[in-house]
Amino acid sequence: MEAKRLITSLFLIIILSLSSVEPTKKIRARNPCKRLVFYFHDILYNGKNAENATSAIVGAPAWGNTTILAGQSHFGNVVVFDDPITLDNNLHSTPVGRAQGFYFYDKKDIFTSWLGFSFVFNSTGHKGSINFAGADPLMNKTRDISVIGGTGDFFMARGIATLMTDAFEGEVYFRLCVDIKLYECW
Amino acid sequence: MEAKRLITSLFLIIILSLSSVEPTKKIRARNPCKRLVFYFHDILYNGKNAENATSAIVGAPAWGNTTILAGQSHFGNVVVFDDPITLDNNLHSTPVGRAQGFYFYDKKDIFTSWLGFSFVFNSTGHKGSINFAGADPLMNKTRDISVIGGTGDFFMARGIATLMTDAFEGEVYFRLCVDIKLYECW
Amino acid sequence: MEAKRLITSLFLIIILSLSSVEPTKKIRARNPCKRLVFYFHDILYNGKNAENATSAIVGAPAWGNTTILAGQSHFGNVVVFDDPITLDNNLHSTPVGRAQGFYFYDKKDIFTSWLGFSFVFNSTGHKGSINFAGADPLMNKTRDISVIGGTGDFFMARGIATLMTDAFEGEVYFRLCVDIKLYECW
Repeated sequence: MEAKRLITSLFLIIILSLSSVEPTKKIRARNPCKRLVFYFHDILYNGKNAENATSAIVGAPAWGNTTILAGQSHFGNVVVFDDPITLDNNLHSTPVGRAQGFYFYDKKDIFTSWLGFSFVFNSTGHKGSINFAGADPLMNKTRDISVIGGTGDFFMARGIATLMTDAFEGEVYFRLCVDIKLYECW
Repeated sequence: MEAKRLITSLFLIIILSLSSVEPTKKIRARNPCKRLVFYFHDILYNGKNAENATSAIVGAPAWGNTTILAGQSHFGNVVVFDDPITLDNNLHSTPVGRAQGFYFYDKKDIFTSWLGFSFVFNSTGHKGSINFAGADPLMNKTRDISVIGGTGDFFMARGIATLMTDAFEGEVYFRLCVDIKLYECW
Repeated sequence: MEAKRLITSLFLIIILSLSSVEPTKKIRARNPCKRLVFYFHDILYNGKNAENATSAIVGAPAWGNTTILAGQSHFGNVVVFDDPITLDNNLHSTPVGRAQGFYFYDKKDIFTSWLGFSFVFNSTGHKGSINFAGADPLMNKTRDISVIGGTGDFFMARGIATLMTDAFEGEVYFRLCVDIKLYECW
């Protein structure tokens, strides 16, 4: 008889626990379900490097133009890019995908930018895309932006990407290391 | 006595299984919880069609301008749009909402773009918005972008939208079919 | 014997219920797991206020320029901003963070915009960022946009932000109240 009562109460607990209303607050594991590290390389058009350039200024404030980055920490310059992605930090390594999107400088007194872009893969290693957005206070050694979605191999992905400036040469070339940590994998 | 021991171990299993730490990796169902298909129509301002135009070039690279799409696969042209959404592929059907956002061309040697936009609904059928972002390699027959959020009827939505170019006429008109598959519905 | 059979069937129910395939459709609680209210202040550069301006026009349609907002409801103007965030509606209160991003006007016959931006915090109160995107039909009293991600204290956040225009002065200053409701907290 006691066993029966126990089982009944057990049943109740299970039913309540498994009801489809999710709790508002969950403690979730903070271990990435996928982690990927890539580099991408940005060569900004400066009026002389049409052959090699992978990006171009497409917006500028009243005090700027679309050939040379403006004063005031480039505030207001908008850049569109199609940059090669590599597995190591060598610009001449075989690209495994393209980083496509835009960034703009958004602060007058220090270099800060904001990024919206995708990693687009179509190789044996990866097929699909990862979409990113977020603020990039680029003078900091590491900066976190959001992985806001993905397609193909990265279907419905969400996570964090840590950006690190791996190199920059004047106002023409920079290389970012992107450490992608996905916390939602489907 | 055996029953009691079994129940006790059962209890332990349940408690462990239901602990609030979510597993890092889940296999999740890939059936959409909502699916919607729409068309939207983009008529680009070209200096002569101010009356009908639904979009305009607002950014251009150094070698371009804001009236005519630039050479090099329109690389660097930024377009802002407010396009009618229809249920069928007829531009003159009664719009059910507006597609509002921007796109830019981001590659020199082939037509490729990147999109950030919203579907804004305020009709008897739907109220609310769906937000999208992603790369659009528009020469491909189908392209997947991310549904990054939603409001109103589409509260907290996430998913994938498959874009298909349904028609295009020169550099003035194109029509996209958008097959929206939501995998997170609230 | 009966107890044993009950326990066996119980086991089966548990195993089935806890299988790792999530149901496609869930009813989820719509109570925010975190709620935050902030104000941010936008002072648009107009050719005379370089000292105070926090934003600048960086894109314009063919009929506009980057010093004065264009006619036709500013359609096509793109603005980049780095605005102070305050806890109350006083522009001169100590900022608790920066709102950094861009907006553009996207409709010819009424004021409507689209926003992509981040709240960037680095104070004792909050560290990290919240990323936003969505349509802002700014003539409406309240407008909902999406919280598409977060970092630091707002790791992996998702939710809705309700925007309210708290003040605007001609075409130079506006203040938005942002009521952030997070429904996914990690």
